[in-house]
Amino acid sequence: MVCEIITIGTEIIMGNTLNTNNFFLSKKLAELGIEVYFHTSVDDNPKRLKSVIKTAFNRSDIIITTGGLGPTKDDMTKEVISKVLDLDMQLDKDMELNIKNMFVNGNWTMSDNNQKQAFKPIGSTFIKNVIGTAPGIYIERDNKKIILLPGPPREMKLMFENSVIDLIKANFNIATTSINTVGIGESELESRLNKLDLDTKNTSVLTFAKEGTVEIKIISKNKDKNIIKNEIKNIKQILEKEFQDFIYGYDNVNLEDIIINLLIEKKIILGLCESITGGMISGKLTQVPGASKVFDRSIVTYSSSSKIEELGVKKETLMQYGSVSKETAYEMAKGLFERNNLDIALSITGLAGPGHDSSTKPIGLVYICIITKNFEKTFKYNFNGNRALIRKRSTIKALDEIRKIIK
Amino acid sequence: MVCEIITIGTEIIMGNTLNTNNFFLSKKLAELGIEVYFHTSVDDNPKRLKSVIKTAFNRSDIIITTGGLGPTKDDMTKEVISKVLDLDMQLDKDMELNIKNMFVNGNWTMSDNNQKQAFKPIGSTFIKNVIGTAPGIYIERDNKKIILLPGPPREMKLMFENSVIDLIKANFNIATTSINTVGIGESELESRLNKLDLDTKNTSVLTFAKEGTVEIKIISKNKDKNIIKNEIKNIKQILEKEFQDFIYGYDNVNLEDIIINLLIEKKIILGLCESITGGMISGKLTQVPGASKVFDRSIVTYSSSSKIEELGVKKETLMQYGSVSKETAYEMAKGLFERNNLDIALSITGLAGPGHDSSTKPIGLVYICIITKNFEKTFKYNFNGNRALIRKRSTIKALDEIRKIIK
Repeated sequence: MVCEIITIGTEIIMGNTLNTNNFFLSKKLAELGIEVYFHTSVDDNPKRLKSVIKTAFNRSDIIITTGGLGPTKDDMTKEVISKVLDLDMQLDKDMELNIKNMFVNGNWTMSDNNQKQAFKPIGSTFIKNVIGTAPGIYIERDNKKIILLPGPPREMKLMFENSVIDLIKANFNIATTSINTVGIGESELESRLNKLDLDTKNTSVLTFAKEGTVEIKIISKNKDKNIIKNEIKNIKQILEKEFQDFIYGYDNVNLEDIIINLLIEKKIILGLCESITGGMISGKLTQVPGASKVFDRSIVTYSSSSKIEELGVKKETLMQYGSVSKETAYEMAKGLFERNNLDIALSITGLAGPGHDSSTKPIGLVYICIITKNFEKTFKYNFNGNRALIRKRSTIKALDEIRKIIK
Repeated sequence: MVCEIITIGTEIIMGNTLNTNNFFLSKKLAELGIEVYFHTSVDDNPKRLKSVIKTAFNRSDIIITTGGLGPTKDDMTKEVISKVLDLDMQLDKDMELNIKNMFVNGNWTMSDNNQKQAFKPIGSTFIKNVIGTAPGIYIERDNKKIILLPGPPREMKLMFENSVIDLIKANFNIATTSINTVGIGESELESRLNKLDLDTKNTSVLTFAKEGTVEIKIISKNKDKNIIKNEIKNIKQILEKEFQDFIYGYDNVNLEDIIINLLIEKKIILGLCESITGGMISGKLTQVPGASKVFDRSIVTYSSSSKIEELGVKKETLMQYGSVSKETAYEMAKGLFERNNLDIALSITGLAGPGHDSSTKPIGLVYICIITKNFEKTFKYNFNGNRALIRKRSTIKALDEIRKIIK
């Protein structure tokens, strides 16, 4: 079964946008045991797109396209593929209504262009897009599968995970389990994995680093579902023993989901005061539905005066030790904890760079302080990387420290 | 003059390596005025590589390949292209000596495989590799240029800059300008663009949606640099008039960078109080180096009590109108403004869903209130989408309202 990925868009071909879609799709398809042999990208030009589609249809069994499903005149993937396959286009009344409703609910103006998105080739199926107006399309023809996905990576990825995997998986017995870890680097994790030597002829164990966390993925393929089940179970047990301190969840749950759900379950009220992360920890936690039940507030104190006024940090502490110090981190958390009705108060302060006044402290220096009724601890870290990376690592570390306190 | 980039390697096709070579080459070629129309990637398989090369030779005038020039058995780009073009391979004595010397000088052991790198198709020219053993190759055939570059990005980039640019230097020029907008959807923008009918035979105007903002890109090509300059200038003026309310910057600057730099320039101190966005606005603004000069604090009040305690919102207001109301938004901003030494106070409160107590208010309802010394205004919005999207749209909208106040 040969698969080809076609990414469509002038912005890719002009070198304005790095093509991450074919990287994502190749990785996911490899995990499913699908052999990708070709990537093709082409600009928004119907003639060239047509030739690319024809070539792909001649040599591949599964064709996945991304891009060109939007409402604008540049978007023509559906139309060109219909022509190549000699299929007429048909207005889908349900989809038209669906799109109209999205606009009515959003109080947006629907342009004539948007109606275009309700057309599909006769005999094809829409694939639901839960976060955008452009639905995907699934076509079966001459024993080949053609799957049209939107170009924006967020929409494409969600659609792939929600719908396309099932469409493709139909003919295989394959199972995967993911174990999600935090607080251990990918290379350390990988060398410990290699020593365990877990791969079998049915089953492989892979690692994927994602935003400060590492996913360990067990993939097993066999005709016999029981063999798959047993091998995954055994390997999972070994991994759980080896990496127990670092495991925060399974099957790609978010760290923030785990934390909010633990807080809700244990009826723990959390408050934050953030300096270096400037609201990022709070922003992540409040992404979880129901966060308002347990997440009380975050005081983002980006100026010295705000640390004094909002949290009662002493002026002398700031003068003597600086705003990035264990003393300031402690007074921030203490002030937050004493002034409010919280079960856990966490503070974070650090230097993200580039360039700063205090020449004696290194960029990447970060303090986190956690205070509860019967626990007080200040942690010190030295993170590597640029401003964005240091802030991201600080955010993940703070979330991990919260997780360890409440787990 | 049509150009095609072919990247060769199983690691790309399997999703192990992100393909940055075609991104780099497309960008550089666009700057040179070369029209890239196709990207193709293929695994290390001679049969498939052959078919890809044949297709490229039929449709493109310049073909640039990367990868498959190394000493191992997987490396076969040179050999396959020689076969497709029906050229014999010849040992180049100078190159053989050259490679031998590299090994002697480097105190490395030369394997038999390395001799392979001294072979080239008859009539072709080597391209010097100053940091690796694999030379590039330049072939001219049927008025077409075929350029073989090594896969490792460092070697490929250096070779491109040092030698390839001169080989393919174009006969015409190209220039691009981007105008970045916020507050207008891509489809509305595009229908207004269509009415303006700006495309000429030299110049095209394209749109790209990115995270709540839309980029308008003007691309102009001609032999005469003055024609390009004038056409871009004219079109830019028309676009600036048509979309003046929505333009926040040029050439893909970030909205948050624009805001922080405007605040610094005008010495304006900003404070926020966030509910629905939970720190996301603050998190974005503090990503900009130097933000601490003008960004004072953000009070993330996620509970009702925090709104009362931190901002002085009246309990009666919350009871009577609810936390998502123009009255609460106003009291949040007012409290923040009065309690602190700010030039601008912005509050935001809304319903991100899914599911909430107040059955009378729709998910997506968001209020923003801005207070300055001589200005008070509350804005109401109805956003569409899921929780993540509503929060993202709220964030972008708040940033846009700040921009409009200070611009």
